[in-house]
Amino acid sequence: MYPNEPIITVVADLVQAQIVETELLAQVNHQSLVATKANRVVRAAQGRAVSDFGARRAHNNDAAVLGARACYIGGVTGTATVSAAQEFDIPVGGTMAHSWVMYYQDELTAFRKFAEVYPDNCILLVDTYDVLKTGVPNAIKVFDEMKQKGIQSKNYGIRLDSGDLAYLSRESRRMLDEAGYEAAKIVVSNSLDEYTITSILDQGGKIDSFGVGERMITAKSDPVFGAVYKLCAVTNDQGEFEPRIKISETVEKITNPGLKRVYRVFNAEGKAFADLIAGADGVSPEAVRDGIIVIDPERPWKKRLFRDCTLRELQKKVMDGGRRTEKSPSVREIAKYVRHQLNEEIWEEEQRFRNPHKHYIDMTSDYYNMKMGMLEEKAHG
Amino acid sequence: MYPNEPIITVVADLVQAQIVETELLAQVNHQSLVATKANRVVRAAQGRAVSDFGARRAHNNDAAVLGARACYIGGVTGTATVSAAQEFDIPVGGTMAHSWVMYYQDELTAFRKFAEVYPDNCILLVDTYDVLKTGVPNAIKVFDEMKQKGIQSKNYGIRLDSGDLAYLSRESRRMLDEAGYEAAKIVVSNSLDEYTITSILDQGGKIDSFGVGERMITAKSDPVFGAVYKLCAVTNDQGEFEPRIKISETVEKITNPGLKRVYRVFNAEGKAFADLIAGADGVSPEAVRDGIIVIDPERPWKKRLFRDCTLRELQKKVMDGGRRTEKSPSVREIAKYVRHQLNEEIWEEEQRFRNPHKHYIDMTSDYYNMKMGMLEEKAHG
Repeated sequence: MYPNEPIITVVADLVQAQIVETELLAQVNHQSLVATKANRVVRAAQGRAVSDFGARRAHNNDAAVLGARACYIGGVTGTATVSAAQEFDIPVGGTMAHSWVMYYQDELTAFRKFAEVYPDNCILLVDTYDVLKTGVPNAIKVFDEMKQKGIQSKNYGIRLDSGDLAYLSRESRRMLDEAGYEAAKIVVSNSLDEYTITSILDQGGKIDSFGVGERMITAKSDPVFGAVYKLCAVTNDQGEFEPRIKISETVEKITNPGLKRVYRVFNAEGKAFADLIAGADGVSPEAVRDGIIVIDPERPWKKRLFRDCTLRELQKKVMDGGRRTEKSPSVREIAKYVRHQLNEEIWEEEQRFRNPHKHYIDMTSDYYNMKMGMLEEKAHG
Repeated sequence: MYPNEPIITVVADLVQAQIVETELLAQVNHQSLVATKANRVVRAAQGRAVSDFGARRAHNNDAAVLGARACYIGGVTGTATVSAAQEFDIPVGGTMAHSWVMYYQDELTAFRKFAEVYPDNCILLVDTYDVLKTGVPNAIKVFDEMKQKGIQSKNYGIRLDSGDLAYLSRESRRMLDEAGYEAAKIVVSNSLDEYTITSILDQGGKIDSFGVGERMITAKSDPVFGAVYKLCAVTNDQGEFEPRIKISETVEKITNPGLKRVYRVFNAEGKAFADLIAGADGVSPEAVRDGIIVIDPERPWKKRLFRDCTLRELQKKVMDGGRRTEKSPSVREIAKYVRHQLNEEIWEEEQRFRNPHKHYIDMTSDYYNMKMGMLEEKAHG
């Protein structure tokens, strides 16, 4: 979501519209926040698997379960939150806990027991005592024993949950490879986010999969998503929508009055170069064909002519008279839609971690002039 | 909670103990986080009222409702989250929304209608168009009209939700006072936290009450509370508890092995000067009388003798055999307990916003030596 872009339009009695306000905002704010953060983490991992390990640090149960849903929409491979996986049909996965290792008298016994119970998901947690001195050597011993017994594991390897993950993963990789276990996976976790993952990979970390917890599920770097819910029109006695506006000293906080239609504007290569806000009548096919004059409200002196472009309307009706007008897409379908948008349609420059290029939210000149007219009237009235 | 201090001890079958892990951590982490942040905000307000306005930016519904509970435990006056107020018997309160003002053709009509419906909670939102030019003058007009009609409002005033709150509150105060409304309240809101509140008050802001939303309900400055859940002992064939330890390269992440008893240690003035971790046998009254030698595990060379002090055990049994052993205290009782602890028992120096003094978590020498013995054995074994 981008500032001041209408993403949901509610047309309802005033009281009904007020009643759904808090719930709508909580859903949109929380899940957009976590999906956005998850997507940043996934991009940092450069194709490696990312799992959501965040339930215990989420802001309570809804945040863990709906957060897992949002992480999947943002692109993670799976979640360790079992109830979310069941509810939303998301891949579930986890590895060994420290308590498994500590329950047994020694690490080797703990690893052996785990391999007996989970031969096909045998990711051994090697940092309970000492990663390179006991953890990885004991893991290799257990992989040797599995080989001797003729067990061909579908998924085996180690997890590192502390220490310098770049160094420890390189050393562990070397030890595993020397023992003939090139297929063994290395999973890492421990307060990861897009920045630590980038840095670990920059330093040559040998990692197959990331378990990401607290910093993804809480969007630690910026845990507030600021979507707002504003009254934009009121019906008059004739049943017509009269626009309303709220003024603010901060330009972005001035609301966009009236009912609107919102489009994403694509160039011939299918890249989105702006979104476009128009009045309730929308933009006609003739206008698209002839070229549309648009205004960036932050730089109104720079008018642009959109030519040879395709417009796609961003909103569609999903409820009417209090009932859904169509079935909700599955979480997997939503994730696929997001992936397509981010990989194919939105410029990479707008997805940089630091100082991304802004996504333009332009207005048709008619809509811009209507807004400015209302602003002047209210400011001087 | 302080690092490595046991706050909850679970004695259970391994599987049962694992099943409650995530839920316990989510509750403790989320609510401790928000209560801590709320208490910081409340202290910054220096006795002025603070209300929780956070629902729409909370990490979904549980975070809004249980977050409101945590805010109240942390010391806020009330919440605008109605369902939380009902569920936990917390004072509820809110003010006018921008939509109320925008619904009417003009601000003065909106204020008049509000005063008709809520004469005794008549806090008018004055920043929809222009605070000093229309908002406050229109509010004064409505207060005049109420006076003429002989209405004596129990609670009336204005709310500022944008702009420079220090400046606007001073100017608004002056205008209200000049019109004879010294009793009118000034409520402010807009991305507040302990730092902005401190700064607004430092600059002479004239404020009676703060509405605090997103930065309190998400604990924006640090949205992760890192309580962990670790196995510390396992029963052997004789039914005795055998301690277990997890080693880490980070000293604070080394677990405290075995069952423990935890005390808060008070001086003659009733101030807590440390907490104390002992083994399962605890500290005998004789030892307290004769003086206890304690060790700060971060500076083990500095042994201290605790003399003339009082010990209070921090844990008590709340469940047995899967059932509560006593009724849960009400949220108001918990809030009172927290207020007493922070105001009477814990040093102010430990509650500073920046660089607070640390709260000592010491160990009895017996417990410390047992832990070190296990560490050496595991490190060399």
